[in-house]
Amino acid sequence: MRLARFRTGSGSRGFGVVGDGAVARLDHRVPSFADLLAAPEPARPDDPRVSIDDLAWEPPLGDHPKIVCVGFNYAAHAGESDRAVEAPEHPTLFTRFGDSFVGAGTPVVRPACEDSLDWEGEAALVIGRPGRRIPPEKAADHVAGVTCVAENSVRGWQLHSNQATAGKNWHHSGAVGPWVTTSDEIGTAPLRVTTRLNGETVQDDATDRLTFGFAELVAYVSTFTPLRPGDLIATGTPKGIGFRRDPPRFLRPGDELEVEVSGVGVLRHGVVDEEGT
Amino acid sequence: MRLARFRTGSGSRGFGVVGDGAVARLDHRVPSFADLLAAPEPARPDDPRVSIDDLAWEPPLGDHPKIVCVGFNYAAHAGESDRAVEAPEHPTLFTRFGDSFVGAGTPVVRPACEDSLDWEGEAALVIGRPGRRIPPEKAADHVAGVTCVAENSVRGWQLHSNQATAGKNWHHSGAVGPWVTTSDEIGTAPLRVTTRLNGETVQDDATDRLTFGFAELVAYVSTFTPLRPGDLIATGTPKGIGFRRDPPRFLRPGDELEVEVSGVGVLRHGVVDEEGT
Repeated sequence: MRLARFRTGSGSRGFGVVGDGAVARLDHRVPSFADLLAAPEPARPDDPRVSIDDLAWEPPLGDHPKIVCVGFNYAAHAGESDRAVEAPEHPTLFTRFGDSFVGAGTPVVRPACEDSLDWEGEAALVIGRPGRRIPPEKAADHVAGVTCVAENSVRGWQLHSNQATAGKNWHHSGAVGPWVTTSDEIGTAPLRVTTRLNGETVQDDATDRLTFGFAELVAYVSTFTPLRPGDLIATGTPKGIGFRRDPPRFLRPGDELEVEVSGVGVLRHGVVDEEGT
Repeated sequence: MRLARFRTGSGSRGFGVVGDGAVARLDHRVPSFADLLAAPEPARPDDPRVSIDDLAWEPPLGDHPKIVCVGFNYAAHAGESDRAVEAPEHPTLFTRFGDSFVGAGTPVVRPACEDSLDWEGEAALVIGRPGRRIPPEKAADHVAGVTCVAENSVRGWQLHSNQATAGKNWHHSGAVGPWVTTSDEIGTAPLRVTTRLNGETVQDDATDRLTFGFAELVAYVSTFTPLRPGDLIATGTPKGIGFRRDPPRFLRPGDELEVEVSGVGVLRHGVVDEEGT
């Protein structure tokens, strides 16, 4: 199943199961999207439908999600970023605020006075069952499914200090979605993660090359903080970011970015300049 | 005024204005604690009172706060941490999840299998009026007041990678409170920040020695992310953490930590071991 959140043209918010050209709304009978992630269930014939043409996707996360991102989790990306290529002992983690992301199809915002908005396509885990100190062998039981993330970063601000926070949390700079494809549909084979900028492939790798795999990440993060339905773990970006190109290349108004995770879907977004600039 | 959140013995949650031995409850007439921070107002004679002896403090923050913490913001602490002593150009920021904190008087939790829980006493700004790209000269208009923070850190995990996230977000490892003292009571003189461990002063400095002052921090953070009522900016810890002592000294069950910010109050908490250990 594909579980999504959306808002309609009239601005009302809902969630449900994505079908062929329409979303079956479950928000009239399931208390929250987090509850649906905790116990996914299929649509019923009498659930109301809203056409995909009549909605805007919202990030398919809980109302107040913990968002944990993993840095340098593909060796090839660590290498292009002047990081040690030998595998580290522990994951490198940072966090993002929920409002640093938009939903699929909504343009991200390039900051005024800062030209270094860069792409980072990623596969991301969305938590289903809550847990703390989840052992790796139980991790799959706590993952509702996988979504696509454009974990876009403002490089100039990311390098202001040794902590990435300021460059990773620009308002509406990244995107998540369009939906969570549930684990039962995804299976256990590696997922291919491909980023395309205006149709040109700029990142392309697969999750079997992650330094820390899905189960290890769930186990590590849940050691120190409780995970809840609707939380997100973005598993890291492959080689090919714009900042490490020669010359560097950044996102500009009019660009279209696509992040495709095989078996999950394609996250597309445009780019606009911050208002007033 | 001193604005606080609490829960009563029966587990119900409330908020209000702290007076002599009691809190006047405003939760029956103000929609949320964030609303009270946005527009502080005094208690009325007919507001119900709850004795301070009959309540437990909760962190005096919004329901889902953005929590931004500043690292190495006192030069003397940067020095003890082997950081460059010359002033950096930009603040070093990391974030904490709300549930990494408890309220005043509630013991913090020392992680199982990890003995390196360390103290960091700090003065912290609580946002009142929302804003984005707040200029430094307007910052005071957006700050509801100041509270005390025990921004305790699990050093072993903080050093797992170059990002502090994992060591800064252990569940219930730090504390905030007991209340927000509103800006009108605090004035503009420097605040003294003193940390005592079992009565012994271990940190002692004042906010006029911050590398980045209150107004600069509000301006910098709000450049990239909107600030809302009830968000927190922890302004950094003075020299004197346990990790940099010889031998290092960490928090242990039975310890009592006090963080005092002059003109604000004293945050006290004990330490317990994680359950099951």
